[in-house]
Amino acid sequence: MRVLAISGSLRAASLNSALLRTAARVAPPDIVVSIFGGMRDLPLFNPDLESQIPSAVAALHGEINLADALLIASPEYAHGVTGTIKNALDWLVSYEPFVYKPVAVLNASPRARHADAALRETLKTMSAVIVEEASITVPLLGSGLSEEAMLQSPAIGGAMKTALAALYTSVILHKSGQGPSFLLLP
Amino acid sequence: MRVLAISGSLRAASLNSALLRTAARVAPPDIVVSIFGGMRDLPLFNPDLESQIPSAVAALHGEINLADALLIASPEYAHGVTGTIKNALDWLVSYEPFVYKPVAVLNASPRARHADAALRETLKTMSAVIVEEASITVPLLGSGLSEEAMLQSPAIGGAMKTALAALYTSVILHKSGQGPSFLLLP
Repeated sequence: MRVLAISGSLRAASLNSALLRTAARVAPPDIVVSIFGGMRDLPLFNPDLESQIPSAVAALHGEINLADALLIASPEYAHGVTGTIKNALDWLVSYEPFVYKPVAVLNASPRARHADAALRETLKTMSAVIVEEASITVPLLGSGLSEEAMLQSPAIGGAMKTALAALYTSVILHKSGQGPSFLLLP
Repeated sequence: MRVLAISGSLRAASLNSALLRTAARVAPPDIVVSIFGGMRDLPLFNPDLESQIPSAVAALHGEINLADALLIASPEYAHGVTGTIKNALDWLVSYEPFVYKPVAVLNASPRARHADAALRETLKTMSAVIVEEASITVPLLGSGLSEEAMLQSPAIGGAMKTALAALYTSVILHKSGQGPSFLLLP
């Protein structure tokens, strides 16, 4: 299974990005988690450019197309989603391979509910399939944990391993058309 | 009064941008509405860059600082705010002159409630003062109106004129410390 991990923060010391790197490190050999590195290069969404897709957007599209599932981790800024994650999603609204893509929505801050709810609303509107069993909340914000400590922590590295297994199961069921996700198809 | 108008859409034929141009055209001589032209140049927000503000962000800051009030019009994309408007706001979260700024939030699509609510929640969190009497909803989406027709329409050009007058009153009261906005100050 190929999982594309997308962080909604460009900050070098972002906890959300660290959480995604942790996911990549705890993943078993049959799950390849790669982190999308082109977020900062995406231009601001402009529907007028959709007829001549900018190269940074084409790179995102290519990675989405190859991925069996997505893992999204994004902070909350001023009770909202980050402009960075919404901008990436705006470029995916009319990208057909995004439809019915299984997505795990991680939340690194249990008290941040506005951005999590808004992100889920947008993903549902875009016909993504949110995999609830893989969408975990981890109390990272303020924990002061190093990336190495996250990896070793049962509440983080361990929980992430379980989340990835749930995502894997969902993708298999989704592909075989037997999963609950399939019921969402028209 | 100087009003800075900000559109959350980069589309050339954007109805929200047309609505802001209409505001600029119906404004009486004592209200100067200027449209911020640098939205597309703003880089994606990165807190790591705040110590060395990019020039496009400095341009936004300068305009915000000079403005007595803001006029925001932004479409809804996939039941959420546009990445473009949220990105601009992300750059203003820690910009002190934004605090207590009177803001009118326009809505060009009465059925689009998610983005309007999310935008207001973010603005309130950033301690902007939303001027309700100036925050009008106009049924532009699907109206097929030309910009000239908007200008002549009592429901659009006329309503916008009334909204600007309400914004003006609010700014005067705000400055004199007698308005309801002032009660929000600590």
